Amino acid sequence: MFDLKEWLLQTLLKLNLTNFMELKYGFTRLGFSKQEKLAHEQFRKIASNLGLKIWQDQVGNQWALWEVDPNAPTIGMGSHLDTVVEGGGYDGVAGIVIALGAIRELKRKNINPQKNIAVICFICEESARFGISTIGSKTIAGTINKSMWEKVTDKDNITIRQAMEEYGINWDHFQNAYCEENRFESFIELHIEQGNQLHKNKKDIGIVYGISTPIRLKVTAYGIANHTGTSLMDERNDALVAISPLISIVQEEALKINEKSKHPLVATVSTVNVQPNVMNVIPGTVELGIDIRSVDDKLKRDFAKNISSHCKRLAEKHQIKVKIEVLADEDSVIRDKNIQEKFSELCEHMGLSYCIMNSGAGHDVMNMAKRWPSGLIFIPSINGISHHPDEYTPLRNLELGVSVLTTYLTNEVGGYHK
Amino acid sequence: MFDLKEWLLQTLLKLNLTNFMELKYGFTRLGFSKQEKLAHEQFRKIASNLGLKIWQDQVGNQWALWEVDPNAPTIGMGSHLDTVVEGGGYDGVAGIVIALGAIRELKRKNINPQKNIAVICFICEESARFGISTIGSKTIAGTINKSMWEKVTDKDNITIRQAMEEYGINWDHFQNAYCEENRFESFIELHIEQGNQLHKNKKDIGIVYGISTPIRLKVTAYGIANHTGTSLMDERNDALVAISPLISIVQEEALKINEKSKHPLVATVSTVNVQPNVMNVIPGTVELGIDIRSVDDKLKRDFAKNISSHCKRLAEKHQIKVKIEVLADEDSVIRDKNIQEKFSELCEHMGLSYCIMNSGAGHDVMNMAKRWPSGLIFIPSINGISHHPDEYTPLRNLELGVSVLTTYLTNEVGGYHK
Repeated sequence: MFDLKEWLLQTLLKLNLTNFMELKYGFTRLGFSKQEKLAHEQFRKIASNLGLKIWQDQVGNQWALWEVDPNAPTIGMGSHLDTVVEGGGYDGVAGIVIALGAIRELKRKNINPQKNIAVICFICEESARFGISTIGSKTIAGTINKSMWEKVTDKDNITIRQAMEEYGINWDHFQNAYCEENRFESFIELHIEQGNQLHKNKKDIGIVYGISTPIRLKVTAYGIANHTGTSLMDERNDALVAISPLISIVQEEALKINEKSKHPLVATVSTVNVQPNVMNVIPGTVELGIDIRSVDDKLKRDFAKNISSHCKRLAEKHQIKVKIEVLADEDSVIRDKNIQEKFSELCEHMGLSYCIMNSGAGHDVMNMAKRWPSGLIFIPSINGISHHPDEYTPLRNLELGVSVLTTYLTNEVGGYHK
Repeated sequence: MFDLKEWLLQTLLKLNLTNFMELKYGFTRLGFSKQEKLAHEQFRKIASNLGLKIWQDQVGNQWALWEVDPNAPTIGMGSHLDTVVEGGGYDGVAGIVIALGAIRELKRKNINPQKNIAVICFICEESARFGISTIGSKTIAGTINKSMWEKVTDKDNITIRQAMEEYGINWDHFQNAYCEENRFESFIELHIEQGNQLHKNKKDIGIVYGISTPIRLKVTAYGIANHTGTSLMDERNDALVAISPLISIVQEEALKINEKSKHPLVATVSTVNVQPNVMNVIPGTVELGIDIRSVDDKLKRDFAKNISSHCKRLAEKHQIKVKIEVLADEDSVIRDKNIQEKFSELCEHMGLSYCIMNSGAGHDVMNMAKRWPSGLIFIPSINGISHHPDEYTPLRNLELGVSVLTTYLTNEVGGYHK
């Protein structure tokens, strides 16, 4: 039988559908893709081998349950197996590997839990495909926006509905994956940090206080497309010339705010789409996607207002039209203090170095936390690199994650040695 | 039998594969596409109806010949039927319609030419698909770069070779479309202006002195992709923040040059490609396509050098890497003075308002002019709009174009009434 480290590596490889983690172009498993489905199938096999009960719910989340008594409370754990385009193999996957690893440890130690333990692979966590994130956990928590989702498309013009149906999901009933209050007693997500605080400060574990959920803006500038060779410089309505200064403005205004504010704010022009985007045509339409985050909700909302007024100023200056759409704007989520304290005590008891921190990235636990007492635990990302083929967390840190969850579960499930 | 105006309209519609010119999204007929082939097939039908001999050459150019004597000299005319993405229905097509219209007029007037007259639809004139323009006329003129073409791809990663082969062209032999010196006595292209000089100054005809062929640069900035939420503002290597100031620099430097130089210069950042271009990832790689034109070759080359040094400065400032590639850099082409004079005299004689002007756009005639005495004649584009669904030239101006070419041909072919 494999030792834990070897089992973690093999499980990581299986869920990533690979024999080798160091791939030049990383991993691409978009939400509701065949690749995500294949990863879920691997999860089913691994969970079955651990003796867990497995099923897929109506939206495509994959469940694995250690059921000791249908009437006992259930402790939920989970994360996701989808990735961004050319992302890393740890984002989401590490949390699933560790949750399964903790169950394996409980079994190996002959712990006999008094509560059920569930592991969930939430479907389509990343916003990489549709600009909408955490579809699986939103459905479980009942915070879906079906009418909006029906209209949103990926870059190939496929709607969420079409993608779901191709995946085998029934669009009319997927919301039935919603869970009642008594489904969980509590919920824990373990995830790689995706930032550099733990690695830089040599901490093993991060216990998350707040998640800075993004405000997302789509700014569309409308100029007039024309031939690059025949339109004199002072006769143009170039949408790109008009709106591109916003890219530096977002960066500089965010830097300024961080000089004086208590909580950090991050803001990024992360997407640019130019129409028609050919060499001999002046840009007619330009879409910029802007992602703004802080655990201080007022700070991020004031920033978004400031950016909007810069857009209007640029539009006036260059005599073009600008449309600003708010794609997302949610309150920052504060985790359950009781669970945070439990993890702090446990880390101290285990002699692990840890810190209380905020999360700049959104996670499925955001949605779970709206309904159930929830916690988010981080393990380090080397050099803070994530959403990139170089994303990496050493096996040693996955092992420490397993130790922490195993200890937590042992305390929670009131188990005894058989 | 249709009168000329009606025939011009019907021919315009047929070549555009439409019943209606005013289409919201204009016309999309990329080079070597099925749409271009369908337009070429329409051309064959129309030319056959005019009694012309038709064939396709080895690269896919479509020829129509009024052959009076295989040993007589041939006057060539021609333009193209391909378009940019969502372009207009006059760019290229108007020139073909008018060339055919002039032949129809010669026949209607029972002119019996002493020379052959050829009309050529050059394949893949636009650079919209591959970033490489005038493939058909380059092949005829023998200025192809086959090894470079083999590597270039469109946005779907299809190489020129693959596109040609799918079109039915034999890659190994397409260069045999090359024409010997004695193939033409002279060559004339009539085209819509695609700029606003004729319309603004109320001129019927433009006689082109020089074509400002573009220098095209591809600037690639290499930053580091990372999660937008977890990377603090001062810890980033955002390729877009680093390189985007170049967009304003290109505009402002070009405006500055036009204040003091004799010939105008135009410069455009026309394409932007961000990798990975998703909401929650900091731009890791950004490609900018820059198009620089002037009939003053030194002016445009100095400008390109200036932009390159700005790139290097931005790279140093933001500590990223920048690569600059020159995709195109050709001398500006000056037309045959003799042909220009003939058209000037002819316009004066016909009482048409005309001007001598430069072309900001490249045309197939650029390549033909390297081998044969050539001329480029413009008719107005309303409001100078081109490469856009609103591109428009009234039928009256097409008719004037036919009159001019008919008179020119009548003078040249030394014909007599039968």
